[in-house]
Amino acid sequence: MSKEITSRSEDYSQWYNDLVIKGSLADYSAVRGCMVIKPYGFALWENMRDALDKMFKDTGHVNAYFPLFVPKSLFEAEEKNAEGFAKECAVVTHYRLKSNPDKKGALMVDPEAKLEEELVVRPTSEAIIWNTYKNWIQSYRDLPILINQWANVVRWEMRTRLFLRTAEFLWQEGHTAHSSAQEAVEETVKMLNVYEDFVENWMALPVIKGVKTESERFAGAVDTYCIEALMQDGKALQAGTSHFLGQNFAKAFDVKFSDKENKLDYVWATSWGVSTRLIGALVMAHSDDDGLILPPRIAPMQVVIVPIYKGEDSRAQINAKGQELVNSFKAAGIRVKFDDNDNSRPGWKFAEYEMKGVPVRIAIGVRDLENNVVELARRDTKEKTTVSLDGLTERVSALLTEIQQAIYNKALEYRNSHITKVDTWDQFVETLNGKAGFISAHWDGTAETEEKIKEMTKATIRCIPLDNEQEEGKCVLTGNPSKQRVLFAQAY
Amino acid sequence: MSKEITSRSEDYSQWYNDLVIKGSLADYSAVRGCMVIKPYGFALWENMRDALDKMFKDTGHVNAYFPLFVPKSLFEAEEKNAEGFAKECAVVTHYRLKSNPDKKGALMVDPEAKLEEELVVRPTSEAIIWNTYKNWIQSYRDLPILINQWANVVRWEMRTRLFLRTAEFLWQEGHTAHSSAQEAVEETVKMLNVYEDFVENWMALPVIKGVKTESERFAGAVDTYCIEALMQDGKALQAGTSHFLGQNFAKAFDVKFSDKENKLDYVWATSWGVSTRLIGALVMAHSDDDGLILPPRIAPMQVVIVPIYKGEDSRAQINAKGQELVNSFKAAGIRVKFDDNDNSRPGWKFAEYEMKGVPVRIAIGVRDLENNVVELARRDTKEKTTVSLDGLTERVSALLTEIQQAIYNKALEYRNSHITKVDTWDQFVETLNGKAGFISAHWDGTAETEEKIKEMTKATIRCIPLDNEQEEGKCVLTGNPSKQRVLFAQAY
Ligand SMILES: [Zn+2]
Ligand SMILES: [Zn+2]
Repeated sequence: MSKEITSRSEDYSQWYNDLVIKGSLADYSAVRGCMVIKPYGFALWENMRDALDKMFKDTGHVNAYFPLFVPKSLFEAEEKNAEGFAKECAVVTHYRLKSNPDKKGALMVDPEAKLEEELVVRPTSEAIIWNTYKNWIQSYRDLPILINQWANVVRWEMRTRLFLRTAEFLWQEGHTAHSSAQEAVEETVKMLNVYEDFVENWMALPVIKGVKTESERFAGAVDTYCIEALMQDGKALQAGTSHFLGQNFAKAFDVKFSDKENKLDYVWATSWGVSTRLIGALVMAHSDDDGLILPPRIAPMQVVIVPIYKGEDSRAQINAKGQELVNSFKAAGIRVKFDDNDNSRPGWKFAEYEMKGVPVRIAIGVRDLENNVVELARRDTKEKTTVSLDGLTERVSALLTEIQQAIYNKALEYRNSHITKVDTWDQFVETLNGKAGFISAHWDGTAETEEKIKEMTKATIRCIPLDNEQEEGKCVLTGNPSKQRVLFAQAY
Repeated sequence: MSKEITSRSEDYSQWYNDLVIKGSLADYSAVRGCMVIKPYGFALWENMRDALDKMFKDTGHVNAYFPLFVPKSLFEAEEKNAEGFAKECAVVTHYRLKSNPDKKGALMVDPEAKLEEELVVRPTSEAIIWNTYKNWIQSYRDLPILINQWANVVRWEMRTRLFLRTAEFLWQEGHTAHSSAQEAVEETVKMLNVYEDFVENWMALPVIKGVKTESERFAGAVDTYCIEALMQDGKALQAGTSHFLGQNFAKAFDVKFSDKENKLDYVWATSWGVSTRLIGALVMAHSDDDGLILPPRIAPMQVVIVPIYKGEDSRAQINAKGQELVNSFKAAGIRVKFDDNDNSRPGWKFAEYEMKGVPVRIAIGVRDLENNVVELARRDTKEKTTVSLDGLTERVSALLTEIQQAIYNKALEYRNSHITKVDTWDQFVETLNGKAGFISAHWDGTAETEEKIKEMTKATIRCIPLDNEQEEGKCVLTGNPSKQRVLFAQAY
């Protein structure tokens, strides 16, 4: 194999980077902390985006586009939000470059083109959007506003990881405005459910829905709901968040509406988002030491057909059959590629498509044709079977569905066997150092204890699961009384 | 009517702004020169984007995503390109804000978070992309690279207009790499033809294909091809450009490939783009004093059905028929809305959908139902007809096709009657001050003459049409010998 990747057991973190780079999903760039999303990675993102976009539209949302820049005075209007993002903002201060008189051919910032007010490159768009909603909302008749935006955002992270944490990333951000708290909360939960549906049924990744503690809440939110997934190294990953913002932004931007009784009140808000970070989750959750494993529903290529030529004679015959299969697969809505590239040998191609996580590989040789069969290989289990060409399209279609489910089941089994109930601090530490995963433990409800546990173990409270069972218990650290267990984990 | 718009004859420029704002396409924002694209405008852009994206993919291109920021040292590498964009760059100089000690609740740029190297917000992505291609290209086997990117870009324009010229805009930029000059030129022309196809057949806007003169060329290009359209005020608008970049960027970023004979050479490049500016062209080309006129193929809403209730009795009956029509239209792939909103009267709705340019309006009253008819109104011609409910879906489907063609024909007729051949300077000035439009005139081929004409009349050479007729003549300004006519116009 031409592209060696580090194994998970050797170095999980390097394994991940190898997969992203050698699986052709992304590349490093010349800009600190920013990545290039390569065509294969972007095709994956397009499939994810299109599925989500349809779900948003089916739930009554429309897309719009708001400016990339947020004037500093708007950015600071909602104090908590500003505080939360101030430390990681890219700031535009000038609007022109000029020739550098000291260095031929070089440019320098033109000091005469300093902006009167600095512009923050959006780390999130609540400020610019609520400043706009102010002009759009007068009465309850203007509500609800159910807008989503697909955009790039910038957060100047000090330590970056491809997809998981990059200075610039792509995401969608929903920003809705409502005439009552109840309606806004319902929207928050509705979108959390949309995310759960998408991540579980398209990305084949089981998630736990919950609410964040105060210290893990989105800056400016009243409540942050989240979906949490588990990676193969036992660390958790926040896959999406949906925020009930209360009237915080309406108050900061003075957005009021008159209700049916002509009474003025501040508007209620939500925001919710998922990002290209999901691709990182996808890679970490399902892949193995030979490369990516992609769920068929979002895989850019669901099936690859590799011809095995033996001399020139059979070439035309194999190609004809290959093309026939491609046409039949395409007609059935299957994303398929026939790889008749002469520059590489079948063995190299097999490894390459394994690396790229193509769910099904079909090999056809001349002997196969004589026997009216092909060799079918599943990426997830590596099983190979020889199957008849008769009814192949239906068979492959069913197999893709089966693989989607199998990948989900495997992740679910792993996740479920990595939720450990612990009742003592010893067990807590032992579990973290051993199998890791989610730890279900009692917590006394104080930010102080939460912080102490984080300092001691790097584990944070991932969420308080929705519909959590209420039971009396004692905090795993302090022994103080507690009414319910919460989920701890180390996290990405 | 609730929303008055300025007429074209009164103030063309204000008419345009009124249409954009009152037609719900876009809104001003708090950021200088940046606009908000509203849901209706964004739905229009989505339809345009999806049609173009399919055309790009059908011609072998794939999408990818490159960083928003360009480090200054990369930005300045291709000297002409840098020179061309330096004066309109937004520059990020800092990566953090901090509390302003002098003003409670306010933030300020943290002077300790100054970037070592400034980052330019991309005005176009050749630099960052060719710096990446350097790592992707070694041999002719790595070529061609046929990548497109949908992205936001920023050009700090001093005078901005909604859609036509905004500091931030959305666009697509194709960036391809080839092993020969001929292949790159072919790509340049192929994408020009894709743009022509899209603008003419989807946007119903006839264009002239041509080549730019040196002074109007894209900074860093060897040749800039363009499509030029004509607006209703007789001004031209550049609707898309496709650049043959030669080896300029390959040389600037040292991108070489080894050919089949193992000889090293610099890679050949193209880039091509269209932007949300096209929406400005669309508005200006087709609309009238009552609002937008949108071509059916890209209209967010192709048909609106307005019920005319007379009392409560007939309401259920009309709604049932309305829903039946919606279902039948949707099944036929028609984008339709049934507007049973009680907050506004039919007359208000009629005006509103005229403003928004919905191609076909259907009104149904109780008397209509008794007679098995509806009233059909075309937005483009304002014709109203009473037609049978039998076969209505097919009729509306055909009507949409007819409207698409009629809008194109009208624009074509206008355009063709606004290309004036002139042979003297007097005629040139007279035409410009009179009917305007394109002026076909001889030019001596010098940048000097071109510049003089621009200074005297604000008219520029829009293009040298492709397959231009060669004929001896005398320059319209200097009388010097010329071999062909070129197209002049004042332009947006
Ligand atoms: Zn679930
Ligand atoms: Zn044409």
